[in-house]
Amino acid sequence: MTDGEHRGGSTGFGLEHLPYGVFSPGRGSERRVGVRFGDGVVDVGALLDDDTFRQPTLNAFLAQGPPRWAEVRTRLHEALSDDRASRSLDHTRPIDDVTLHLPFAVGDYVDFYSSIEHATNLGRIMRPDSEPLLPNWRHLPVGYHGRSGTVVVSGTPITRPSGQTKAGDAAAPSFGPTRLLDIELEVGFVTGGSGNPLGEPIPVKQALDHIFGVVLVNDWSARDIQGWEYQPLGPFLGKSFATSISAWVTPLEALRPYFVDGPTQEPPVLPYLRAAEPRNLDLDLSVELTPTGGAHAYPVSRTTFRHLYWSMAQQLAHATANGATIRPGDLFASGTVSGSEPGTMGSFIELTWRGARPLDLADGSTRAFLEDGDTVTLRGSTPDGIIALGDVAGTIEPARY
Amino acid sequence: MTDGEHRGGSTGFGLEHLPYGVFSPGRGSERRVGVRFGDGVVDVGALLDDDTFRQPTLNAFLAQGPPRWAEVRTRLHEALSDDRASRSLDHTRPIDDVTLHLPFAVGDYVDFYSSIEHATNLGRIMRPDSEPLLPNWRHLPVGYHGRSGTVVVSGTPITRPSGQTKAGDAAAPSFGPTRLLDIELEVGFVTGGSGNPLGEPIPVKQALDHIFGVVLVNDWSARDIQGWEYQPLGPFLGKSFATSISAWVTPLEALRPYFVDGPTQEPPVLPYLRAAEPRNLDLDLSVELTPTGGAHAYPVSRTTFRHLYWSMAQQLAHATANGATIRPGDLFASGTVSGSEPGTMGSFIELTWRGARPLDLADGSTRAFLEDGDTVTLRGSTPDGIIALGDVAGTIEPARY
Repeated sequence: MTDGEHRGGSTGFGLEHLPYGVFSPGRGSERRVGVRFGDGVVDVGALLDDDTFRQPTLNAFLAQGPPRWAEVRTRLHEALSDDRASRSLDHTRPIDDVTLHLPFAVGDYVDFYSSIEHATNLGRIMRPDSEPLLPNWRHLPVGYHGRSGTVVVSGTPITRPSGQTKAGDAAAPSFGPTRLLDIELEVGFVTGGSGNPLGEPIPVKQALDHIFGVVLVNDWSARDIQGWEYQPLGPFLGKSFATSISAWVTPLEALRPYFVDGPTQEPPVLPYLRAAEPRNLDLDLSVELTPTGGAHAYPVSRTTFRHLYWSMAQQLAHATANGATIRPGDLFASGTVSGSEPGTMGSFIELTWRGARPLDLADGSTRAFLEDGDTVTLRGSTPDGIIALGDVAGTIEPARY
Repeated sequence: MTDGEHRGGSTGFGLEHLPYGVFSPGRGSERRVGVRFGDGVVDVGALLDDDTFRQPTLNAFLAQGPPRWAEVRTRLHEALSDDRASRSLDHTRPIDDVTLHLPFAVGDYVDFYSSIEHATNLGRIMRPDSEPLLPNWRHLPVGYHGRSGTVVVSGTPITRPSGQTKAGDAAAPSFGPTRLLDIELEVGFVTGGSGNPLGEPIPVKQALDHIFGVVLVNDWSARDIQGWEYQPLGPFLGKSFATSISAWVTPLEALRPYFVDGPTQEPPVLPYLRAAEPRNLDLDLSVELTPTGGAHAYPVSRTTFRHLYWSMAQQLAHATANGATIRPGDLFASGTVSGSEPGTMGSFIELTWRGARPLDLADGSTRAFLEDGDTVTLRGSTPDGIIALGDVAGTIEPARY
């Protein structure tokens, strides 16, 4: 075992990974780009003497594109390997000594709905008397735009939002704190490179060249606000109060060995969505709930990303099929990732069937939806444990209004 | 008549107006902030010797907030008044000699649905057998997020988008150029100042303090793509290919004399949406169609903004009621502005009742939806003609795929 592997290997943040983030070493100090290596954060601008990384976001680096991403990855790999560890150590700080920030300025944020199990579960819950999947679902990756300005980094407290809701039997809506605060376990990708000119779609076979890396995403959702507002133009305030992402962006390059075949798509998709196999990423995902106090963390869901119906390449090809442009720092999230078995769903509305079957926590309490003080942590890793995505944690603070 | 009034007065761009934009004086020259005055563009950074305006977008100025906006407006007013006209002329270029750019970097783009006439028309067209307004419509300003990265400046060519569509009687969807390319005549507002902390709504009575100014908006729409994709998460590719805005942002300050009472809201709205009167802007709006060649421009719609059901202050209070933040440069558009009389609707789907009643142009041709080569121009002004919003023009180019 080399020093480099020793420093990084056991945590999911070894030489094989090298995810990028933004940190500041102390209170009030300037933000800069870092790479996570083991339990340390490497100051990339200092280590490589490169101003691209002496910046408060990753966006300048994202804009540089795949050849440059590969070059920097090679240089980091070399610098962090055992024979140079002493030099890199000068530029490494313990992760507990730094503050982590949102890693990139989010351009547009698109949220898909690409898990067939999730869409089916939601359809059964919302429209119990009809076909759970709407007619368009198997023909295109349904998606919509979310609010990019409220994408926040893991660890940011989540204030319980207030809004208009209307109970089915109420004469009129009322305003108050959401009673159905939920999570959505998602995997997002971040775009980079020179993008596409307005009017020029990105072909599905070239889509991965425009993707820099992936993050875990928690698309916090207020189901009662969403339920009242969403007809006919889709989710708005039920989602826009906050969306949490990992502090660390895992380069797609690090995940190349983990591409697997996706599920069969039936009926066959239109040509502009026909992707080469293997097209899916094999990632294990989980959700953990820690009630106030933090004494116990309860696993509430364990699922996989490998069966996602619509792949990242298909999502990006679809999102640009009308000629819409992408920019460095656009975020595209998968939508809730769910399995079909109990305990494999990525939201409480599914796990508890809209509250009808609350989860029993081992301390004797139950959860239908989130309570104030609850902390939710999303985790993800390759099945071999070699790469751990940056986790996404958030604690619910009481409503203020 | 003073020199200043003479230079600006007759065009809707006199001393009373002074809208901001971004221009470059020649090919390849740097972008900077300008103020439109008559048929000239004043280089604000040069005139005031202020680096805030030596920037490629208005965002730095937007961030500075209302006291600073008022101060600069006063200084510009003084500098452009007759006794100083000779000095300001040194920094003024004829508008035909400059290139105009997108005036601000758009943060998030939200599109509302705030005209009761438009929502009613759409309901009648889309769901002829049920109540045209959905149950939530009179209780909250329905809205959704659009794509900020494809907001473009007036004059940008619009490529006819392709996408998935499915005719009602078709067995499966197909991919191809939209056949139902449409406009949406809208008025948008641009936010500025220090914004709100995450979790803190902006009260309706303070909302106008966060608004810098207004622009005309053409929210281009592909109705067939939209119709197939929009269930259950709302519009996506049917809208995201392009949204055009004015090159000139009219300061809200210039429009203060044009606030009028809004329509009665029945049932009464919840307290967080109760705005003081007068709350609406009195603006005349129109749409003009110029077929290929440009020999004739046909007026196709003439309407007013003064009856909009949900006001700008209500829109902003609602959009932040869940604690969502705003940033300088966020764009909030009204949704299509329509009247109830023939010829007062802000979209072709309404004007032609989804193509059932094509418009007769005076040259003998007809229009149900837009054809390649058509140019659409939106115009707006105060009823007295003193202030003309920057117009929004776009020409349809043939589909490329």
